[in-house]
Parts: sequence; structure tokens; C-alpha cells
Amino acid sequence: MVLVTRKGYFCAAHRLYNPSWSDEKNDRVFGKCNNPNGHGHNYTVEVTVAGNPPPDTGMVIDLKVLADIIEHELIDRFDHKNFNLDVECMRGTIPTAENIAIASWNILSTKITEGKLYSIKLYESENNVVEYRGA
Amino acid sequence: MVLVTRKGYFCAAHRLYNPSWSDEKNDRVFGKCNNPNGHGHNYTVEVTVAGNPPPDTGMVIDLKVLADIIEHELIDRFDHKNFNLDVECMRGTIPTAENIAIASWNILSTKITEGKLYSIKLYESENNVVEYRGA
Amino acid sequence: MVLVTRKGYFCAAHRLYNPSWSDEKNDRVFGKCNNPNGHGHNYTVEVTVAGNPPPDTGMVIDLKVLADIIEHELIDRFDHKNFNLDVECMRGTIPTAENIAIASWNILSTKITEGKLYSIKLYESENNVVEYRGA
Amino acid sequence: MVLVTRKGYFCAAHRLYNPSWSDEKNDRVFGKCNNPNGHGHNYTVEVTVAGNPPPDTGMVIDLKVLADIIEHELIDRFDHKNFNLDVECMRGTIPTAENIAIASWNILSTKITEGKLYSIKLYESENNVVEYRGA
Amino acid sequence: MVLVTRKGYFCAAHRLYNPSWSDEKNDRVFGKCNNPNGHGHNYTVEVTVAGNPPPDTGMVIDLKVLADIIEHELIDRFDHKNFNLDVECMRGTIPTAENIAIASWNILSTKITEGKLYSIKLYESENNVVEYRGA
Amino acid sequence: MVLVTRKGYFCAAHRLYNPSWSDEKNDRVFGKCNNPNGHGHNYTVEVTVAGNPPPDTGMVIDLKVLADIIEHELIDRFDHKNFNLDVECMRGTIPTAENIAIASWNILSTKITEGKLYSIKLYESENNVVEYRGA
Repeated sequence: MVLVTRKGYFCAAHRLYNPSWSDEKNDRVFGKCNNPNGHGHNYTVEVTVAGNPPPDTGMVIDLKVLADIIEHELIDRFDHKNFNLDVECMRGTIPTAENIAIASWNILSTKITEGKLYSIKLYESENNVVEYRGA
Repeated sequence: MVLVTRKGYFCAAHRLYNPSWSDEKNDRVFGKCNNPNGHGHNYTVEVTVAGNPPPDTGMVIDLKVLADIIEHELIDRFDHKNFNLDVECMRGTIPTAENIAIASWNILSTKITEGKLYSIKLYESENNVVEYRGA
Repeated sequence: MVLVTRKGYFCAAHRLYNPSWSDEKNDRVFGKCNNPNGHGHNYTVEVTVAGNPPPDTGMVIDLKVLADIIEHELIDRFDHKNFNLDVECMRGTIPTAENIAIASWNILSTKITEGKLYSIKLYESENNVVEYRGA
Repeated sequence: MVLVTRKGYFCAAHRLYNPSWSDEKNDRVFGKCNNPNGHGHNYTVEVTVAGNPPPDTGMVIDLKVLADIIEHELIDRFDHKNFNLDVECMRGTIPTAENIAIASWNILSTKITEGKLYSIKLYESENNVVEYRGA
Repeated sequence: MVLVTRKGYFCAAHRLYNPSWSDEKNDRVFGKCNNPNGHGHNYTVEVTVAGNPPPDTGMVIDLKVLADIIEHELIDRFDHKNFNLDVECMRGTIPTAENIAIASWNILSTKITEGKLYSIKLYESENNVVEYRGA
Repeated sequence: MVLVTRKGYFCAAHRLYNPSWSDEKNDRVFGKCNNPNGHGHNYTVEVTVAGNPPPDTGMVIDLKVLADIIEHELIDRFDHKNFNLDVECMRGTIPTAENIAIASWNILSTKITEGKLYSIKLYESENNVVEYRGA
């Protein structure tokens, strides 16, 4: 089995905020991530697919195909958007990196048909990273 | 003359939008950077100070002093903020990387007293960078 | 299960040297890493915690909490220190990257109470990396 | 068990092309990677070895030994070469990143005698990465 | 004056070889860069434009416009190509990084009409970089 | 004129300390950089040479020659050393990044005979950088 990883990039705004909590509790738990007007990040997403490269192509998945799936399913959906207000699949969910990674897995797992989705790794910043490998 | 550079990091949201223009013109000029709910970036700022290191310290400017100035004057002002709504010194200015760099220069040029401010370099993303060296 | 990773940075000096060996054997095994006056590195440590993000916070572990634990338990202990002479928890151990990673695991495994410590990854340099996931 | 990773770098040219296919099919499957005169990459290879560091050395494998094996077995074989025309161990194989990683595993698995080869990770570019952990 | 920089990426093969020299002299001067079947690189190009950001846009040059110029004039011309055999503007020139940077300057200097071309910086690898600022 | 840059890497220990000052003043000025047993860094040095590439080679300076000069004159002198105790050319000087850059300039300026030494840039860490372009 070989793991193949392709990276994608998007910029987005978000605010960490639980509407069922008081302002005071939101501030205590989420701190400056709860700024009412939001803040933002340059996100990097790494999508990893597992499989065996067949001899006639030598490729687990065509990287152009994988790049196109990432572009159309993730970048087009998230780039230059506000996760709290503009992104349908995050509605009702707090847009932490953890939840964005899980949502990305749910979107991509049915779209990847060569090989099998293995991992979604999401960098919110150079220092903060999350990874999800499915339930 | 030796150039000494210290980096700082902040995350913020912004929207490129000229209120004296029509929505149509804003969209044409600023494209997806004009998303009404904003988007955001991890910004990296590089502040460069020029001077001669005196023999008794060997330092143009104490890097801890420079780091503190960057922290208090830039990071505290910009980090986890929305440039259009939360940042006083950007009021009335379109928050492009160019204008954020110029504003940063104006803030820091009077605060740096060891050596002389030489350059503000601002990375909006890995691929987009601006630099300002004063008027 | 989601993996959450936070990075930390410290600078330290060390010397690879086994006091029960002859100088000749130390030189043969450790080469220039056995320089008697020591040398040093900028270390990067990546601490990974595993868990399920609860719906009300969306976070496996609050990244500010994790950052604080890394700061107080690892950075304060190691930064601007000499591993052979200044760091209590390394006494009697050769300060290779392997042993620093194991010591870091032993320190952090009891301090992390949201989620579960999953991995300590330590970069001694861009080219040399070790990872420890517990015994 | 501790994982120890050492990086190596090489530059090479390659062309993705299946000689048993028509030109039209090669173009459709491999796109611009099928440019007849080839193109090239700066490859980064990460070799990971697993083992327990013995108390007298604190090292899973001497990183100088691992660096030398990578230098002599991979870099000398691949660097400044054309994978389709100059590299014996790739003959009859399409030089995708997947197949180069598998070939590297086959070469190194018998050469590493301290610890055990755990993984070969190959970066064809910043955005395209493959990893192989053996059959 | 503000400097605005946009990065681009391409992969290409090349061979350093002076056809008016003997094979022996080519080997002596260019070493392994003279491998007859070529080798290759992931190149990064940084294009810097200088100007004053007008108040109504706050931009020296629209970064999307600059990105498009880089894409159409440099990436389309160089990416997945062999510099010795496939690139018209390099014909009769040894494809060193220096000469590729000069050729890129000559191509772009007439295409950039907002602001003024200031510098072409070309990374042949992480360790080898050239910069050209015009004659 | 084209600028050609080559990077080099070394690891070293140092302590910032002025022997003509009291311990109290050293602590106040140099803070934790004055740890008596030293600390250390992975340094990156970028050496830039300026010149015109002649048509027969297309190279300002042969990068292998420049790499060899950096290796023999800087890396061999500094790598795995303690700047306060092991490096002759730093004797009597406080080993700040500024002073290491100036010493490197003084060493290299007479050794580079193709092109002309233009700049020494020294990264003490990802966040702290100095540059010297001669007196």
C-alpha cells in the first residue's frame, strides 16, 4: 500500500462561538478566537489517499484528478469565505479546525474512487494542526 | 551597517471594498476579496532595523526589545481582529497588504530608538508579499 | 478520533558523550557531536493529542491550554539551556534527540488531561527528526 | 519504539510514459507529465527507521550512518540523472513518485542493520508526496 | 514606494552544456549538471513590482493580474518543459538560473503596466538562488 | 548585474556575555542568552555574490566553487563548535549574530574571486536574522 498526498490552500474567516452559551462563557472558553467581527487564517489541507499503484500507470490516483477534486469540493467551497456565515456544510457546527477536517472528510470520502481516502490533515497555522482518519 | 530582522505573526480577517464605488465595480476590481462576510489570513511581518553594533553589546538592537515592540505595537493591535471593523489605524483605508505595511511603518518608526527602521515586509500568504521602506 | 498537534520551539546546547567510555571511543561513535565545549540546535517539538471533539466546543483539547503546557513543561525547562549541565530530567542520560523525546513524553503524559498524548516529534534540525509514541 | 527520520535531496528528470500505449492514450492519462523531452523535480526523500535506543548510545541508528546509506544508495543513484534513461533499478517501470519510493524501499531495506526500515516518504514537489511502508 | 511580490512555480529539465566546448571541458566546468540526458528542478520564481498604491484601490498592482501574467508568460512557457529543447526564448543560451532569470525579466518588463518591474528572483533549489534587477 | 546566493548550515553553541561587565549587568542586557553553560542554534548562512554571467558559462560564479568556499571557510570553522571557546576568529568579540556575520564577511571577501561578495545573511533562528553588506 502506498499513501499519496496532495496539498491545497484556502483563506477564510471564522469565529469560535457557541450560541447556546453566555457571552461570558464564550469568552472564557474561546478567548480571542471569539472576536465578534471574526479573524482569519491561511489554511493548508493535505488529503491522503491509500492504494496500490497498478503497473500500467504507476499511480495510486492521478494527482491531477485528486487536485481537481480538492479544488472543486474544498477550495471552491471554503476559499475567501466566512465559515460561520458562508459555508453551508458547517451550519450548526463550531468552525474549529477539528470540525472543518471532519466536514472535509465527509465531503471527499464519496468523491475519491481511485484508492481510498486515508487522512485529512488541516493546518490552521504553522503551529496548529489537526488530522482526521475517519470514524 | 548591519540589518537586523525580527518576525512576528498575526491572524486577521479583512474585506477589500471601496465604499465610494458601486457593488459591481467592487466585484470587478477586488473579485473574491470583496466577499461581504470577509475572509482572512495568517500574516507574517518582518521588521528590519539598520545600525552599527557597538562593541560592548554586539547588537544593533536588542532582539528582545524589538520583539516586544512588534508584540505590543503590531500583534496586539492586529491579531484576531477584523481589519475593516476593529483596527483604529486602518479606518478610512482599504486594508490591502500595501496599506497594512505602510500603517505598520508609521506606527513603528517612532518606537524604534536603537538603530533606525529600515523595512516592513508583510506576507499575506506564502505567495503574496509586500515591502515598504518609508516615503 | 482526531489528532491535534501543537508546535513549540527551543534553543539548547548539548554534547553527545558517554562518561563510561574512553575519549577515543566517544570520538569514534559520536564524532563531532562529542566536541568537549558542546554545540547546539534550534529544536522544534510537535506534541500530538488524540481524542473526540465534543459538540459544544468542537475541540479535542483547547490549543491555548496545550500551548501553555508545552511552554511551562518543555520550553521553560529546555530553552537556552545546556542539556548536559542544566536539565535535571536528562541527568544520567545521553542527550540524543531520541532521549529528549522520551523525556518529553514522560513529562507531558501526566499533564495532558483533555484527550490523550499520542506522539512527541522532535526536530533537531531540518534533516534529523525523531518521534516517540510511548512504550 | 522510537522512529528516526533523515532527509536527503536529489534533482532528476523524468517522463511519465507507457510504451505499450498509443501517444494519444499517454497524453490523456499523463498530460503534460508526458512531455517527450522530459521535465524534472527537486525531490526530497525522508527515510524513517524504527527501533529502541540502547542506553550506552541513546541512538536508534547513528544518523551519520543513516545519512551515508542515503547518500550512497539513493542520492548517488538518482541525483542529476534522468529516471527513464539513466537509472538501472527503474528500468521497465514508469518513474512515478510511487514507483521511485517502492524502488528506494527495496534498495534500503537490506542496507539498514541498526533498527528496521519503517517508511520511505518522497516529495516530488511541495504539493505532491507519497509514502511507502513496505508490502 | 512599495514593493509587491508574487511567487510562481514550475518544474523543468535542463542540461548545462556549451556546444562550442569539448566534452572534457563541459564535464570539468559543469560537472554532473552536464549529464547528457538532463536532470531537473522545481523552480520558484518571485516577481517584484514597485510602485505607489493609489488611495482608491490600495494596490500597487492587482495581484490577480500579476499572477495571471506570471502564469501565462512564465509558467506556461517553462512548466514541464526541457529548457534546452522546448523553450524558444532560451535557444542559444546556456540554461543556468542566471540566464533563465534574465530571460524572464526580458519577457515580463514589457507586460507589467501597473507599477514597474523591480526584480526577478529564481530559486533553482532551496540552496541555490539568483536575482536580476535589470541591466 | 545578477546576484547569486548559496546557503550553508551549521550548528553551534554560544553565550552572550561581556567579561568587562558585572554578572548583574550581563543578565540585565543579555537575559537568558547569558546562561553560563551556553545554549545553541542551527544557523543558516546565505552568501550572495554579484556579477555578470559571461556568455560561455552563463554563471556569475560556479555554485560548486561557492559551495566549497562556504564549506571550507565557514562550516568547517563553525559547525559543532562553541563560538566562545572554539572559534579563533571570534576571540575577543561577543558572538552575536551581527558579529558572526561581520566575521564571515571578513573571511569570505578575499576568498571569492569570481564576482564580488555582496551580502552575508545569517539566520540564528526562523525569527531572528541579520545581514551585512560590508563596511
